[in-house]
Amino acid sequence: MAGGDAKKSNAKASGGGKKKEVKKETGLGLVNRKDENFGEWYSEVVVNGEMIEYYDISGCYILRPWAMAIWEIMQKFFDAEIKKMDIQNCYFPLFVSPGVLQKEKDHVEGFAPEVAWVTKSGESELEVPIAIRPTSETVMYPYYSKWIRGHRDLPLKLNQWCNVVRWEFSHPTPFIRSREFLWQEGHTAFATQAEADAEVLDILELYRRIYEEYLAIPVTKGKKSELEKFAGGLYTTSVEAFVPNTGRGIQGATSHCLGQNFAKMFEINFENEKGEKGMVWQNSWAYSTRTIGVMVMVHGDDKGLVLPPKVASVQVIVIPVPYKDADTQGIFDAVAATVDALSEAGIRAKSDLRDNYSPGWKYSHWEMKGVPLRIEIGPKDLANSQVRAVRRDNAAKIDIPRAQLVEQVKEMLDNIQQSLFDAAKQKRDACIQTVKTWDEFVEALSQRKMILAPWCDEEV
Amino acid sequence: MAGGDAKKSNAKASGGGKKKEVKKETGLGLVNRKDENFGEWYSEVVVNGEMIEYYDISGCYILRPWAMAIWEIMQKFFDAEIKKMDIQNCYFPLFVSPGVLQKEKDHVEGFAPEVAWVTKSGESELEVPIAIRPTSETVMYPYYSKWIRGHRDLPLKLNQWCNVVRWEFSHPTPFIRSREFLWQEGHTAFATQAEADAEVLDILELYRRIYEEYLAIPVTKGKKSELEKFAGGLYTTSVEAFVPNTGRGIQGATSHCLGQNFAKMFEINFENEKGEKGMVWQNSWAYSTRTIGVMVMVHGDDKGLVLPPKVASVQVIVIPVPYKDADTQGIFDAVAATVDALSEAGIRAKSDLRDNYSPGWKYSHWEMKGVPLRIEIGPKDLANSQVRAVRRDNAAKIDIPRAQLVEQVKEMLDNIQQSLFDAAKQKRDACIQTVKTWDEFVEALSQRKMILAPWCDEEV
Repeated sequence: MAGGDAKKSNAKASGGGKKKEVKKETGLGLVNRKDENFGEWYSEVVVNGEMIEYYDISGCYILRPWAMAIWEIMQKFFDAEIKKMDIQNCYFPLFVSPGVLQKEKDHVEGFAPEVAWVTKSGESELEVPIAIRPTSETVMYPYYSKWIRGHRDLPLKLNQWCNVVRWEFSHPTPFIRSREFLWQEGHTAFATQAEADAEVLDILELYRRIYEEYLAIPVTKGKKSELEKFAGGLYTTSVEAFVPNTGRGIQGATSHCLGQNFAKMFEINFENEKGEKGMVWQNSWAYSTRTIGVMVMVHGDDKGLVLPPKVASVQVIVIPVPYKDADTQGIFDAVAATVDALSEAGIRAKSDLRDNYSPGWKYSHWEMKGVPLRIEIGPKDLANSQVRAVRRDNAAKIDIPRAQLVEQVKEMLDNIQQSLFDAAKQKRDACIQTVKTWDEFVEALSQRKMILAPWCDEEV
Repeated sequence: MAGGDAKKSNAKASGGGKKKEVKKETGLGLVNRKDENFGEWYSEVVVNGEMIEYYDISGCYILRPWAMAIWEIMQKFFDAEIKKMDIQNCYFPLFVSPGVLQKEKDHVEGFAPEVAWVTKSGESELEVPIAIRPTSETVMYPYYSKWIRGHRDLPLKLNQWCNVVRWEFSHPTPFIRSREFLWQEGHTAFATQAEADAEVLDILELYRRIYEEYLAIPVTKGKKSELEKFAGGLYTTSVEAFVPNTGRGIQGATSHCLGQNFAKMFEINFENEKGEKGMVWQNSWAYSTRTIGVMVMVHGDDKGLVLPPKVASVQVIVIPVPYKDADTQGIFDAVAATVDALSEAGIRAKSDLRDNYSPGWKYSHWEMKGVPLRIEIGPKDLANSQVRAVRRDNAAKIDIPRAQLVEQVKEMLDNIQQSLFDAAKQKRDACIQTVKTWDEFVEALSQRKMILAPWCDEEV
């Protein structure tokens, strides 16, 4: 594996030994700059990073495997956590009948303009148009009313992983605002408000962990104003992220206490221990594929995506660099051994052995895709029993002795995860401005600040 | 834990020590008989077993946690297997534009009558009606055409877990025929037919394993006739199950070779090693929540569901039986210790400590839900350091010494899994009849046989 016995070999990387045409380093790199034209940069990076493909229906997007793998990693974490909380998965229909949809007045007013309606099947008109769920409160709660009879049926804690549709007309943006998106929605019912209140915060903490521990994005937990709360609910909590380039906060995920409002409308009653009739307290909570968009916005740069190691489906890309007179076979063997050693240690590592691309092209390609760590193995590395590791986030390069490969790579990945969070937090915190007057508020807003302001919590 | 020190105690099971009203053993058990009125029996068993709740839109059903857990167990197996085959997950939109849907003539003819159409959002008519996917060939393949340029882009192997909608009007049946259902759909493209042919069978083998190894249902692998094949495809393979009570075969899952038909329509071309232009060979393959319905039909009996241990979310239910003069606390401790020991060994075990239901009610309840093994712990078991295990499938009872709990329970679960398969196979095989003439064919059909007949494979 080690060695400096360079043999005469084709200067171009060549697995099979045949001469191949090596593509020029063109066609990579972004046209737009994050600091100059953020919106265009974002669209370009999600497409060139192979997260998204634009679809022929406006506001709908294709989630490619590179994005889906991130969703699956977050899903695995969250699903295991809620199962520990005795929350069970289920699946309710995509379709809602109009009568049920309209049962809760504030709720339907909040969602009605965005609801997509099915009116035909084949060539036939449906007798009654059927709505596609924008969220599932009104889909589920008639059955909660049926299933909940006594206090022993409580708490009832269900979740589903599904798609929802909101036919929005304003500025569709991949991940952030799309007409169909994937999410989980939890819907729980309790005998007491205290239990509901506690769960709202337990779930909010899981959302914080998704953002901070997985996506390396600092978020602020808080309670929404009356105007911004969930339509028909009692109060809404959320985690809010901040994108310094736009100066905009962005709602990360929401955990709502619905109070007894839906319970009243859908008659979700129960008999308590004393034989008295009560009404349940309900919560609903959700996070969506929007999480991925926030991650791209916060960490991405002018070379493309920057993926935090914990959510990257490829954490380490290993690239052979067999230039002039190199021992090509020795280098390819070292690449394979490196991938094997890392994989065995539970690190998601992959090699890029394509012989029609130059090492330089591959560097740019995997930088565009945001792989956290690149390992290069060339003749010098072979000779010195080392590999060269290059960080995606700050371009730092270090030579790692082969004997310390696994522990040093693990350490670097941990460092990258932490550095991304620290850098994002530093940038965000630098934007925080405390204001005391309306003039200061307007001024800070024009400077794209994140504003800390007094709040009377009263509707005018 | 062991002991025979029976204390004076309330005769009724009572965790908290308070007197509770114990519900009568009424309201359980099925009204319908599997052998007498199969259709009604099936509807009753999926509802009373808490797999399904009927929904207020005809042909749509709620998948309750008891069903969803089975789906998740199969999904975990299948998803890991296809990932080993380098198939990647993705997510394409729910919506299809009419132009794309109609691109493949045979395909659209096959699905058009069942397509649900969105024509409105909020109060506005859409400019162009939009279809909801009945399957995703036409959703995906325009992008395959875009992504595939040269032989190095092949094979392209994608899968998605999603919902699809087929607005059928004939006999909706939970799991078996519903207007919306969950499935996975794999869509792959290869440079050669040989690769496509091989994958069709690799996937079919995974479907066989789901049925035979997980659901304990014998299936027959085979190739569909020209009339029954997938609309627009080259040939269709399937695994077919058989329900003796109805005398009907039921399509379990399908793995299609699409040939180059869609490639032609969607122009999915590539340049091969020699610089020549070629057209890809494609497959698509799917299994759905129908699997769960077939399982209910094959194994269920007049007491309710019968779940194969490998897919049961609760494999062992442990029930305290503290009758007159029993050491209630000792029994509850033994129940807890039993659940702990089984759980630690990776067995999905749960106790039912509810104090408002009698042991007899609980037996019926968990039999209705199909839990493979029941463990009862009463005073005699406590005295003898044993537990009593009762099989769901054949009601066999054995006393297991506490010291051998884990290994004996493991062995019993394995036995149950195998017995269910063997019994289903025996019943199916007993229905197979070989015929040589059309008269014999018609006669066998009237006797609800599974018919083995000569087949000319020619269209008349």
